[in-house]
Amino acid sequence: MAGMIPIMIGAVVMLATKDHTKEMNKREGYVVVTFGWLVMTLSGTLPYILTQSIPNFTDAFFETMSGFTTTGSSIIHDIEIIPHGVLFWRSLTHWIGGMGIIVLAVAILPLLGIGGMQLFAAEAPGPSGDKLHPRITDTAKRLWLIYFGYTLAETLLLWLAGMTFFDAINHAMATLSTGGFSTKNASVAYWNHQPIIQYIIIFFMFLAGANFVLSYFAFKGKIQKIFKDEEFKLYSWFIAIFTAIVALIIYFRADLSMSTITHPMVWGQAESAFRHGLFQVLSIITTTGFVSADYTLWTHFLVVFFFGLMFLGGSAGSTAGGVKVVRHLIMIKNGFMEFKRSLHPNAILPVRYNTKAVSGDIVFNVLAFFILYMLSFIIGALVFSMLGINFESAVGLSASSLGNVGPALGNFGPVTNYAALPAFGKWWCSFLMLIGRLELFTVLVLLTPFFWRNR
Amino acid sequence: MAGMIPIMIGAVVMLATKDHTKEMNKREGYVVVTFGWLVMTLSGTLPYILTQSIPNFTDAFFETMSGFTTTGSSIIHDIEIIPHGVLFWRSLTHWIGGMGIIVLAVAILPLLGIGGMQLFAAEAPGPSGDKLHPRITDTAKRLWLIYFGYTLAETLLLWLAGMTFFDAINHAMATLSTGGFSTKNASVAYWNHQPIIQYIIIFFMFLAGANFVLSYFAFKGKIQKIFKDEEFKLYSWFIAIFTAIVALIIYFRADLSMSTITHPMVWGQAESAFRHGLFQVLSIITTTGFVSADYTLWTHFLVVFFFGLMFLGGSAGSTAGGVKVVRHLIMIKNGFMEFKRSLHPNAILPVRYNTKAVSGDIVFNVLAFFILYMLSFIIGALVFSMLGINFESAVGLSASSLGNVGPALGNFGPVTNYAALPAFGKWWCSFLMLIGRLELFTVLVLLTPFFWRNR
Repeated sequence: MAGMIPIMIGAVVMLATKDHTKEMNKREGYVVVTFGWLVMTLSGTLPYILTQSIPNFTDAFFETMSGFTTTGSSIIHDIEIIPHGVLFWRSLTHWIGGMGIIVLAVAILPLLGIGGMQLFAAEAPGPSGDKLHPRITDTAKRLWLIYFGYTLAETLLLWLAGMTFFDAINHAMATLSTGGFSTKNASVAYWNHQPIIQYIIIFFMFLAGANFVLSYFAFKGKIQKIFKDEEFKLYSWFIAIFTAIVALIIYFRADLSMSTITHPMVWGQAESAFRHGLFQVLSIITTTGFVSADYTLWTHFLVVFFFGLMFLGGSAGSTAGGVKVVRHLIMIKNGFMEFKRSLHPNAILPVRYNTKAVSGDIVFNVLAFFILYMLSFIIGALVFSMLGINFESAVGLSASSLGNVGPALGNFGPVTNYAALPAFGKWWCSFLMLIGRLELFTVLVLLTPFFWRNR
Repeated sequence: MAGMIPIMIGAVVMLATKDHTKEMNKREGYVVVTFGWLVMTLSGTLPYILTQSIPNFTDAFFETMSGFTTTGSSIIHDIEIIPHGVLFWRSLTHWIGGMGIIVLAVAILPLLGIGGMQLFAAEAPGPSGDKLHPRITDTAKRLWLIYFGYTLAETLLLWLAGMTFFDAINHAMATLSTGGFSTKNASVAYWNHQPIIQYIIIFFMFLAGANFVLSYFAFKGKIQKIFKDEEFKLYSWFIAIFTAIVALIIYFRADLSMSTITHPMVWGQAESAFRHGLFQVLSIITTTGFVSADYTLWTHFLVVFFFGLMFLGGSAGSTAGGVKVVRHLIMIKNGFMEFKRSLHPNAILPVRYNTKAVSGDIVFNVLAFFILYMLSFIIGALVFSMLGINFESAVGLSASSLGNVGPALGNFGPVTNYAALPAFGKWWCSFLMLIGRLELFTVLVLLTPFFWRNR
């Protein structure tokens, strides 16, 4: 199954390197990526169906799509009775999906002219002509090595911290891919009495939601490049500020924190508030979707807050889904520029990223992406509400599926599962997970009439 | 009080015509518009406070801001016990606000380089230098004449159809300004037994949500201009399609429609479903906020649906609030172009409106506006949720206030009022109504540090 990834990459590279008919290649690129993902998902249902762990095809497709897109929503009622082999496959779909996303984000999507990594084009000179093939496989190999190394490191640390080896490897695969499938019904809340385990997962969630290219620089000793990267800085600030907000609310509203607190000492309470705040903020921002506590039982404010975080997303070039921090950065900067433009209409004020001016085309693409994202979100919520799902659950499902987060709101919150969704709702979730994962344009362009015209 | 409007216009025109320091004028324009609106609202609270109809200053400010911004949210529990003179003043705040908005949208905001009417710049050649003053007052006079004529016509028609003259003139003022204050606690549902009254209001809501410049063309006999206008066509299509959806749902779900149906015959049921569907769709799209039935009691789908409609808004150059149809049109067209650009990266594909190419700057401004709108919406909802308001009510309040709609969702739906909001919530609503009404940039630019620097 994992063999599909190199085949997909090979196909795209092959198509993209036929240099004399460049536009044809782009079209074929979109088709290969989208249909490749679908074929991978279809064949990925087999382990579930053959073992009868998930006998229903719709459910198996949903679970596999949720796995490969690193979303982590599940239709399984009791995870702990599923055979270990099947659970391992379930976590492996996350891990394979994460590998696919790294190479898509870093190598293939920029080639097709889409995705958040366009902004890094200057860092890793754009491949062209026959130099393309070695470059893509080179980049992919290096980043996969880091991905593999991190997974191994997390597995060992979790094992040492007291998890069984099986739980450790599964959670490591689900962390690095920002997936969120757990081997326990209570998710990571199962280890609420072992804070060290939760801190290890926190650390690797942070890494998985950061750009893997930055990890590569770190290993090459170029540490200063990391702390100069504006997206990394904003990503870190977001996490710090949002954690402070959530932790303070949990701490001062003892009635809320009691449900998640295990040590009744004052220090323990502060530590627990900090840990759960940090864990849940990271889990939603990086779109992992692990659960240490049920945030929908906290305050009304925190429900709206976590709903808002679902639109943030991790960094470009990470395995996280969502809108991505770099796009928000461009939107914030462009918003300020628009204010300045409204005062100085004749001044030329380019948006700058990492000190370089960003071309108008890329800014346009970012703004159009966000609008398309919001449109997909509202249409997504409308369809769920048609199935008789209430307002809060419908908008939560749509935001969570589109952002590849996992847990939603209302009836589909962190401590429930998606089994109660009608069959059509599961297919609709799968569709939203797919388009969200492939950065909207890749899939949606196939639905436009002109894609199939004037070939 | 109405005298404030000419003074505001005069001040902006005066400032804008000082031709040698153009940038200074723009700054001063933003200040005058925003503070003018605030001063107008402050003085507008006097009738409420002096008569002790609304003794509380916060409440009086809220009611006045809701009036001038043509929102129509109210903190009054029992409207029918308020003296007629005060109710008339309440409706008059709508009507004056509507007059202010017409001249702002058509004459002043384009001068400052913002607002949806920039796209019509070609239609009404941009004023410059000393020709400005006669042009603005000319345009304003003509459009006000139409506004006045429509109000008079609706008043007479409603009176003939069976309303008291007092109810007729109040509802006419609240319709043409797309405000939504009623003189009855049940709003327009009071006349559920007199469909003709509701159809008259429907007709004038449609006119009030369309561009007043098109009405002007109609009176000059240039009918073909109206039917060639892309925004008007999309506005009409939106209403037709959305009405069909809502009416069909009400019709086939007899359990929903029973609450709103008065004639138990089959024809009556179909007519009633059509009427309530059309009424509520128009009421939300045009951001009027009149109520013929409580849509929050319909299906889960329709709650999400009407929530989505709150982001639509009427036409540019109308008295309606919200994002506006023309911006959605530009975003849809640009979205398609972005898809085409992703296939043909080197092609130059401008967005066209009414056959003319739209400049990149204007498209940029439209996209940035929408993103700022969504950001304001989510921050708006976060603040409401901090006050202990639940998810559905908080997002509903934010969307409704920002779009100047009136009724929201949850605890602040069509048949309740805003009295239960904490004082801070009322001020926050007032702020959102103000920034929504003044097209965000006008107010928010005053909050940026660089507005006050480098003068």
